[in-house]
Amino acid sequence: MKLRLPVAVFLFVLGAAASLVGDHSHIVTGTTEYLSDAVPFVWSSPIWFPILVGLATVSIAELRLHLPAARLSVTARQGLAGVAAVLGIYVTTALVHSGPAAPVNTLIYALAVITWCALGDRYGGVCGVIAAVVGPAVEAVIAAAGLARYAADSDALFGVVPWLPALYFSFGVVVSLLAEISVQQSAVLADT
Amino acid sequence: MKLRLPVAVFLFVLGAAASLVGDHSHIVTGTTEYLSDAVPFVWSSPIWFPILVGLATVSIAELRLHLPAARLSVTARQGLAGVAAVLGIYVTTALVHSGPAAPVNTLIYALAVITWCALGDRYGGVCGVIAAVVGPAVEAVIAAAGLARYAADSDALFGVVPWLPALYFSFGVVVSLLAEISVQQSAVLADT
Amino acid sequence: MKLRLPVAVFLFVLGAAASLVGDHSHIVTGTTEYLSDAVPFVWSSPIWFPILVGLATVSIAELRLHLPAARLSVTARQGLAGVAAVLGIYVTTALVHSGPAAPVNTLIYALAVITWCALGDRYGGVCGVIAAVVGPAVEAVIAAAGLARYAADSDALFGVVPWLPALYFSFGVVVSLLAEISVQQSAVLADT
Repeated sequence: MKLRLPVAVFLFVLGAAASLVGDHSHIVTGTTEYLSDAVPFVWSSPIWFPILVGLATVSIAELRLHLPAARLSVTARQGLAGVAAVLGIYVTTALVHSGPAAPVNTLIYALAVITWCALGDRYGGVCGVIAAVVGPAVEAVIAAAGLARYAADSDALFGVVPWLPALYFSFGVVVSLLAEISVQQSAVLADT
Repeated sequence: MKLRLPVAVFLFVLGAAASLVGDHSHIVTGTTEYLSDAVPFVWSSPIWFPILVGLATVSIAELRLHLPAARLSVTARQGLAGVAAVLGIYVTTALVHSGPAAPVNTLIYALAVITWCALGDRYGGVCGVIAAVVGPAVEAVIAAAGLARYAADSDALFGVVPWLPALYFSFGVVVSLLAEISVQQSAVLADT
Repeated sequence: MKLRLPVAVFLFVLGAAASLVGDHSHIVTGTTEYLSDAVPFVWSSPIWFPILVGLATVSIAELRLHLPAARLSVTARQGLAGVAAVLGIYVTTALVHSGPAAPVNTLIYALAVITWCALGDRYGGVCGVIAAVVGPAVEAVIAAAGLARYAADSDALFGVVPWLPALYFSFGVVVSLLAEISVQQSAVLADT
């Protein structure tokens, strides 16, 4: 494993915490609904949701470190902006989810593209695409299993909502950036 | 004509396609309404709408190439961000159109200004201002001719909506940027 | 006083004018309400509101000039983007205020963080934090005095709304930037 342990722990906690805020926003706006209370809940989410997102965060960051050409010019400031962007997109999906499909989906995809343009590189895009495929696929399985569902007007993509790949894409791009920043911080620490 | 033919075709198709997404968003949210079905429709738009926007896209790009000082530092990444920004602003107008005039108009003008600040140069601003005058003027004529109308609470600017110049301004700024990118790509191709 | 008089006057007018647009947006959307008409009103605001915001604008700019390391690389373009960003955030609070607390507050804090990441430096952050403490404190006193109130679902932070510190933070960051730009413009003028 290339991620140092404190970085992995930090990313797990960050991903899990962000997922709780976003998931609560989806629940409270009726974007999504959990259909089983068989496990304990944290805030509005069953315990497995933040754990899955935390593990996904660590996995994508680890993946990035196995891909070539981690940028050394990235800054903690960019990482902070990226985290704010993903959280902002996440809660925007909750706030606009009841609108008509075309403008809502276009808005979220546009925001995801702008996030990549501002912060991503080629391999961040790769991480984003992988997240955009795997994340919604896992959610589609969860929906098909009857554990959760998207609102009736928001399940047109195999039972999940069509903007979900865009949200996961921005997530993958920013986690990839955070992995690059962790490499650079290590290099700086090693120099001193 | 300074635009190479493949670039002109690309810009025509891009402008027409984007206009269909945005116009559908306006129709489906009740921002605008077409009052005549005398011509065939593409998705939610009469066939002349995407054609007009496609021609406007090519015209503004051609205009930019006749203005001085095309930047050679612009990147395809910036162009992609610009297209996403214009589409994002376009569908945002649809999503917020029913809100009170002052915050809605301020938001769209602010987004247009930020788009210029991030991506525009002086001559992109000129293209933006020309688009912001000509586009709404054409739409005001179309509205006056009884072919289309804005919602009753959204026609305070000669029959069109007051944020319309801001939307066209961002469109003009980004098309100008795309023209600059096409020049640079040609230079790169010529070098190789 | 380090601010030159014309700059101070400009900042006072800018802050007062922006506050009128934002405050009108809050009033017209029911975000806030004034409970006394004992003083004359300008548009939707009692006369003391734009005066207070104008004075706050000048004070924060003056404060920035007493802090170290004003950046000489800042541009008028960044200042324009910053003003548009603060106005955009201000009216966004008005447009989304009736939504559930978690997504609404997260969105506004995310936008404030992105504003700092794009435009701020360390001391701009200091100015932002001071504005984020003093501004809402003053508004809480005004609310406690019965002069104004936030909507019943939007007063969870000592009688004011929880996103208010984020709005003031972005305001402080951008005013600090404007102060830095004024220094640089003076330096350019002195050189010529």
